[in-house]
Amino acid sequence: MDVLIVFAHPEPRSFNGALFETAVQTLTGAGHRVDTSDLYRIGFNPVSDRRNFVSVKDADFLKLQLEEVHATEVRGFAPDIEAELMKLEAADLMIWQFPLWWFGLPAILKGWVDRVFAMGRTYGIGRIYETGVFKGKRALLSLTTGGPREAYLPEGLNGDLDAILRPIQRGILEFTGFSVLRPEVHWQPARAEAAQRQAWLEAWATRLRGIESESPIDVGRY
Amino acid sequence: MDVLIVFAHPEPRSFNGALFETAVQTLTGAGHRVDTSDLYRIGFNPVSDRRNFVSVKDADFLKLQLEEVHATEVRGFAPDIEAELMKLEAADLMIWQFPLWWFGLPAILKGWVDRVFAMGRTYGIGRIYETGVFKGKRALLSLTTGGPREAYLPEGLNGDLDAILRPIQRGILEFTGFSVLRPEVHWQPARAEAAQRQAWLEAWATRLRGIESESPIDVGRY
Repeated sequence: MDVLIVFAHPEPRSFNGALFETAVQTLTGAGHRVDTSDLYRIGFNPVSDRRNFVSVKDADFLKLQLEEVHATEVRGFAPDIEAELMKLEAADLMIWQFPLWWFGLPAILKGWVDRVFAMGRTYGIGRIYETGVFKGKRALLSLTTGGPREAYLPEGLNGDLDAILRPIQRGILEFTGFSVLRPEVHWQPARAEAAQRQAWLEAWATRLRGIESESPIDVGRY
Repeated sequence: MDVLIVFAHPEPRSFNGALFETAVQTLTGAGHRVDTSDLYRIGFNPVSDRRNFVSVKDADFLKLQLEEVHATEVRGFAPDIEAELMKLEAADLMIWQFPLWWFGLPAILKGWVDRVFAMGRTYGIGRIYETGVFKGKRALLSLTTGGPREAYLPEGLNGDLDAILRPIQRGILEFTGFSVLRPEVHWQPARAEAAQRQAWLEAWATRLRGIESESPIDVGRY
């Protein structure tokens, strides 16, 4: 497989960093081609605007989707965006490694989506959900939480994690055609013992060695 | 009232820009003190990292919540973050004006939350939800969509907008103690006639003139 791992955490020696490194090493060791986007390391700018493009459709009024469709037609994406698009298009499996911040993606990862998932190139009229551009590809969210598992149950303090993740799994991944694999969730790693974290890393590696045979989940509906 | 309006759109002449200007003018005209954070205009950087702070708790390993609690204790937030915190703390009513991008906040606004809503200063152990730091304040999402209203019903193509907004209204706003007012939603303004958009702006101004007497909504649970 071609695998793209997108990583969004400012501290490389964090547990998120260890999960990222485990994925890179395990999947490479299993014979897959692994590409990465370590967003903090490359200094990715998540603010979507004219810097997404080298082409210009309307210099007077900025309508991003119009510029995206135009850039798709004339190959007018800025080099950093084009590089991310090519990784995305090459991937059979995409993994996002991130901490859940404010019940969503860290801004650097949300902006990677805002800028890279361009209209025309990654979705379009009649090319969403079941007929999505990335049909046949699979995606997996690997995330950590600040709270314990019981806080993310339907009756828990914060509410059902599946519902919290639905705008991402349904609204971004399935919207563009990806099939979604079970999210890899680690609860409160900051409070776990070193031995527990090591056991989690080994379990993650074991899961990844069998990832090719996993079936997608039903992410549910709102 | 003290009102803070946070605006996140790269094109000031967009319909989002018109909604923002309408809110500023209407609320100022009604005698309220209005402050703004026009995130694209001020070039707000949404990437959360050590640049949030002038203080340092642990120079060797970056744990953001640890640094946030420390910065709270020693008044160690970077000047741009401190400025946003003071606006947030002064506001009786906060309005976010933004386009719904990928079923969530534009990255520049998500990162405003990631960086400004700091542990210690805006929430803490035992100070969330019903006992939140911002209890007594009210907040309102004013957003535009790319799709029509029927796509955001529970059985619609994209699913229930209330559920899509819950991680924001419940997970960010109510989490920190805000009471949430009914979201102001404009469906597909890009496809509306100029007269329709003008009527929407007038209806928004009318709503804002009576905003002090509005009651919070139940944002629901997952």
